[in-house]
Amino acid sequence: MTKEDLLPSLRHALGAAHVLTAPDDTAGYLTDRHGRLHGRALAVVRPADTAQVAAVVRLCRAHRAPIVPQGGNTGLVGGATPDASGHAVLLSLGRLNRIRAVDTDNDTITAEAGVVLARLQEAAREAGRLFPLSLGSEGSCTVGGNLGTNAGGTQVLRYGNTRELALGLEVVTADGEIWDGLRGLRKDNTGYALRDLFIGSEGTLGIITAATLKLYPQPALQLTALLAFPAIGDTIGFLSRARAGFGAALTAFELISDTALGLVARHVPEQAIPLDATQPWYALLELSDSEGEAHARARFEAVVGQAIEDGLVADAAIAASVAQSQSLWRLRDQALGVAQQRDGGNLKHDISVPVSRIPAFLQATATALQAAFPGVRPVAFGHLGDGNLHYNVSHALASTPAALFADEAAIHRLVHDSVHAHGGSISAEHGLGQLKRNELPRYKSAVELDLMRRLKQAFDPLGLLNPGKVLPESQPDASTP
Amino acid sequence: MTKEDLLPSLRHALGAAHVLTAPDDTAGYLTDRHGRLHGRALAVVRPADTAQVAAVVRLCRAHRAPIVPQGGNTGLVGGATPDASGHAVLLSLGRLNRIRAVDTDNDTITAEAGVVLARLQEAAREAGRLFPLSLGSEGSCTVGGNLGTNAGGTQVLRYGNTRELALGLEVVTADGEIWDGLRGLRKDNTGYALRDLFIGSEGTLGIITAATLKLYPQPALQLTALLAFPAIGDTIGFLSRARAGFGAALTAFELISDTALGLVARHVPEQAIPLDATQPWYALLELSDSEGEAHARARFEAVVGQAIEDGLVADAAIAASVAQSQSLWRLRDQALGVAQQRDGGNLKHDISVPVSRIPAFLQATATALQAAFPGVRPVAFGHLGDGNLHYNVSHALASTPAALFADEAAIHRLVHDSVHAHGGSISAEHGLGQLKRNELPRYKSAVELDLMRRLKQAFDPLGLLNPGKVLPESQPDASTP
Repeated sequence: MTKEDLLPSLRHALGAAHVLTAPDDTAGYLTDRHGRLHGRALAVVRPADTAQVAAVVRLCRAHRAPIVPQGGNTGLVGGATPDASGHAVLLSLGRLNRIRAVDTDNDTITAEAGVVLARLQEAAREAGRLFPLSLGSEGSCTVGGNLGTNAGGTQVLRYGNTRELALGLEVVTADGEIWDGLRGLRKDNTGYALRDLFIGSEGTLGIITAATLKLYPQPALQLTALLAFPAIGDTIGFLSRARAGFGAALTAFELISDTALGLVARHVPEQAIPLDATQPWYALLELSDSEGEAHARARFEAVVGQAIEDGLVADAAIAASVAQSQSLWRLRDQALGVAQQRDGGNLKHDISVPVSRIPAFLQATATALQAAFPGVRPVAFGHLGDGNLHYNVSHALASTPAALFADEAAIHRLVHDSVHAHGGSISAEHGLGQLKRNELPRYKSAVELDLMRRLKQAFDPLGLLNPGKVLPESQPDASTP
Repeated sequence: MTKEDLLPSLRHALGAAHVLTAPDDTAGYLTDRHGRLHGRALAVVRPADTAQVAAVVRLCRAHRAPIVPQGGNTGLVGGATPDASGHAVLLSLGRLNRIRAVDTDNDTITAEAGVVLARLQEAAREAGRLFPLSLGSEGSCTVGGNLGTNAGGTQVLRYGNTRELALGLEVVTADGEIWDGLRGLRKDNTGYALRDLFIGSEGTLGIITAATLKLYPQPALQLTALLAFPAIGDTIGFLSRARAGFGAALTAFELISDTALGLVARHVPEQAIPLDATQPWYALLELSDSEGEAHARARFEAVVGQAIEDGLVADAAIAASVAQSQSLWRLRDQALGVAQQRDGGNLKHDISVPVSRIPAFLQATATALQAAFPGVRPVAFGHLGDGNLHYNVSHALASTPAALFADEAAIHRLVHDSVHAHGGSISAEHGLGQLKRNELPRYKSAVELDLMRRLKQAFDPLGLLNPGKVLPESQPDASTP
């Protein structure tokens, strides 16, 4: 069969209305969220169900056409954007948007890949349960993308990454077969961890079409607070106490540096900041209490009160109302991003290091940045409890954003080298996609890359599933830091 | 090289004292825990460290000698026992018994494969932390075996299986290379889930030599209680309330049937049972409270009191002292096992089904058993919160254990067919080993078995790592239920 036969075959399989080729129809699928990456495709196809996904894969396989799966197209590393060749078929999972089952006795929900995360959260809530995955793009990202990238977010401290929330998967393999692994079991030791292998593989080993996910009880109450710390070591010391004192009720511990908070004060004046911003570090805490407000406040006062007495915490502001709590989360989720943008944008890093090495990492990286790029401003914030920082770098005040972006590659390398030297990861929660894959040989051993290549070869020997993603090019820069 | 060269090479690599060939020296390694399986081996080797494990693998590879890794030899499915050919080298990880690091700020511990679980728990305790994995054999099983089999135990409800407790691994591959994946990161999305693939692969894809594992805060207090329920549906209804009312403080919810409790009363009279045993179902609950005894008791009384009022719970006995709490755990951990043995032994099943399907599973299985094997007595107990039951079958009182064991294969099949019909797993926490692997084609799809075989081929193309385990023989009974 020739490539020319593929489009008619796809139209026959899905109906012509679901095989898009007109530039106006396909443009939204072929550009990434930030508008930085532009791909081309033979067509954008929108199968209606798992059987149609399998049919698409079999047709593409017969024509040796690459397949790029896509969920909500909210990824940050170009994992869902095809290359510029125009050979690929972009497979949108958007029409696989059914919630197949909610089982409250088993505390599970089974949803298709195209279900938007916010809708899944809502379905859980309607059933009196919590689906705890929560991230900035939850209004448009999809379950399939969350699984494909093993998305993290703000509740990982308590509930884990998407990986830890998944019990079972349904996957279309590179052969176009359907693996029904939709098990709602918390214990199952009957073979290799196929589920975990597909999760986080960014569509390069198979296409996730549905998942059975864990539900949790809804907490009785969530109490949010902003705390100020005299030093990063105190923040980490307090995290340890908070984990012990609050137990699993501690559901978020979001770090914000003074620089980051200062950007909000300067560029987003409408955002309330309920503390005097005179300390170097801040954290947004969330307690999810199974008893109620009085208990949550009493616990908070006991643990934080002692920490203030001991000098670990300099100041604390507890949200007195749901509105104040929402305002604190807006500070973390929106205002910080807006402030950085209004400041001229910056270079972003999604990194993690062991929590114990965060102080050394911050110190060493800031020192190295100042030496190499005088005046640039690290803007650090993120999920301290997971060791996951969004370590962004803003332009020197005496300089311009354009000058900063001209140094993009060198600054990325400096930060990632420092992450690596501190035992960390250069992609904590965003994945590798096409933007980070060629950094792997610098930071991963040949043994690990070899094992990854063997997996790809075993599951997708023709290399048709999301080519150019995750695995590095064969002759990349293999220098080591 | 010939097989004859292998022993001298192994002696050269490890020292003659660590290459055991005398029957008296090897016997303990070549028989499984229950003394049912007897294997043979060219030698039992005891490398001292990871480099020596890699050297053993390279030597065995050069001689095409199979390698059977072994930890504490406490497995229940023959995963660590070689076949009778005498070709294999049994590789004991027992000398890799160092705790390499404890990091309290990162809440991690790094331990070698041969560290006994109880010693790891103790090391965590000494650092003021909890390593929550807890199972019957913890005094002799090892971390490597726990990881290789993805061990479960009594705390999975709160902390997950061994898989969920592992952050990083060090593994010797089938090529004799060392993969250093000892990362202490809670978020790392830089490639395929190699860690999860090795976990639960029972030594068939690589040999785990060390791991970085999660630590948790020690709870301030553990409160244990025995509850009685009028019906299994009430037990499940109460589980749901307990998860909501206690939150993550609910660390164990162990089901015990009246038959199981009756066996204890009859055969282990020294075991106290703090309730009138007049109800069909019982559960041992454990609350791990981060505040203290008064709070735990108040919470317990609030949640259980309401459930008694609503008729879900028939009776409840809270342990009033540490001694009473230990007595309750002895009932669950030891007395139940002793009672079954004194009753003449029985046929054991380590199964899971979705929690919501447990009532239907229990009903359907009991009915089918009575029809096919009149009078046999199901003895059901286990980790209800995970849907994991040890569904054992004791002989009919009018018959003998010997008559029961004569029906072993047919009873296993009946129970496992019923598990499968209810969406369950035939091995919830024990693995497949050599005893269950040939059941897989009956319960798993051809797609899944094909993917498993591809993984084995990709990582161990010569088939030298623990052959005859996990993967079914190529021509097994492929009948489907």
